Amino acid sequence: MKKTQLVKNIYKKKSFLCVGLDPDLEKFPSSILKEIDPIFSFNKKIIDATKDFCVSYKINLAFYEKHGLKGIQSLQKTLDYIPEDFFVIADAKRGDILNTSKMYADAFYDNFNFDAVTLSPYMGGDCIKPFFRNGKWSIVLIATSNPSADDFQMLKTENGIPLYIEVLEKAKTWGTSKDMMFVVGGTRPEIIKKIREHAQDFFLLIPGVGHQGGDLSEICKYGFNDQVGVLVNCSRSILYASKGDDFAEGSRIKAEKIQKEMSTYLS
Amino acid sequence: MKKTQLVKNIYKKKSFLCVGLDPDLEKFPSSILKEIDPIFSFNKKIIDATKDFCVSYKINLAFYEKHGLKGIQSLQKTLDYIPEDFFVIADAKRGDILNTSKMYADAFYDNFNFDAVTLSPYMGGDCIKPFFRNGKWSIVLIATSNPSADDFQMLKTENGIPLYIEVLEKAKTWGTSKDMMFVVGGTRPEIIKKIREHAQDFFLLIPGVGHQGGDLSEICKYGFNDQVGVLVNCSRSILYASKGDDFAEGSRIKAEKIQKEMSTYLS
Repeated sequence: MKKTQLVKNIYKKKSFLCVGLDPDLEKFPSSILKEIDPIFSFNKKIIDATKDFCVSYKINLAFYEKHGLKGIQSLQKTLDYIPEDFFVIADAKRGDILNTSKMYADAFYDNFNFDAVTLSPYMGGDCIKPFFRNGKWSIVLIATSNPSADDFQMLKTENGIPLYIEVLEKAKTWGTSKDMMFVVGGTRPEIIKKIREHAQDFFLLIPGVGHQGGDLSEICKYGFNDQVGVLVNCSRSILYASKGDDFAEGSRIKAEKIQKEMSTYLS
Repeated sequence: MKKTQLVKNIYKKKSFLCVGLDPDLEKFPSSILKEIDPIFSFNKKIIDATKDFCVSYKINLAFYEKHGLKGIQSLQKTLDYIPEDFFVIADAKRGDILNTSKMYADAFYDNFNFDAVTLSPYMGGDCIKPFFRNGKWSIVLIATSNPSADDFQMLKTENGIPLYIEVLEKAKTWGTSKDMMFVVGGTRPEIIKKIREHAQDFFLLIPGVGHQGGDLSEICKYGFNDQVGVLVNCSRSILYASKGDDFAEGSRIKAEKIQKEMSTYLS
């Protein structure tokens, strides 16, 4: 998907919400567990319930790989079910030597037709470059929302700047704002502000809202650029808003609430 | 597999060779491409040809994921075919927030029964810790063998030490030499030396020998500890030693040659 299309979709739906499809059997209501393919049945209902309120779905590969062959089947059916015009992200955090990254790119783009893949930058540029392809997006981890992000990302280098800014600056030599985004945790607005200063034109994929505690108004205040420039991901807070058989209705209500709030920041 | 067993296997076979199973259809002889499951057929012959000369197999997930469901089937059949007593590594370079890393650990340990998983440390400790389980191994990327490893791993921090040493020192607070190894590229002996100074008891998984140019005698000189402490991985140089229908024989000759050289360093 091209950037112009993504921005158009955001304004049309008044939403920059990405719904994370992290299907966790332990959190499913018993009615869904009785289905032949519980993961796909769950995702199908979540997609039906949320598609009017989001522009993107993010597939967390771990939740499918956990179930081996069956999980990959559920993944394929889920991808087939997501309507066109959604920006579909493989949240895979891959990154490996050149010939291996090329294989991963084939897996996500050719085999599954994802629009984007999240990538871990520790091994440097030649692990990221095979993911740049026409119409596809590399989404590079910069500053994540988990507690131990500080272990390395916030370490200052001898240049007097934190590692995550070093990664950001180097990443800008790999791609452009038309084929690369950055992952920034939603729990620390000051980091979003800093990253926006260094990467004005780039889209930021921001998880950590909802379950992890990020605040949407702060994210928009510091994250927005003149083309919105922000995709906010919510997974658990939408998927498991209600734990009973009415889970899809719970997800719909939660997604709509977030979209309504988003629409106020967009106008 | 316990460390004592791994070391025992190394001395018994006089080999610390890990064969990387990176099946690339473009490099297969035409006879194999005609098989119903070319990847499994290829791997089966490679395993038969090399099992007397190695103690470990490393599965590069990308080469299987590229082929979707079929690739995962080939992976499962390959794992079922590897004899017991081999140390089997998922070369996956995963690492994600806590609940996601737990799912990946389930995927690799419960679903596929790997002994070990390679992990990317950019997101810090809470992304690695779910991979510690009884009898299983976390293999953390420290200093890789690819050209762009220098992008970040060699950056000096304000403490005056390179990032890869910061990662190594922090990683030592996550696990022990009985459940954690480190990935160190084989192309730079001086880095192996440095890492060995900081991590005396730990096993090092060293790729980059063969195709990438690492020298085995140098690796042993700087990498060995009093329990060997080194697994050397070769993929392409063994798998594609011969490109014709005699590929398995080519692999056998190459693996045996490496094992013979290894036996001299072990005695």
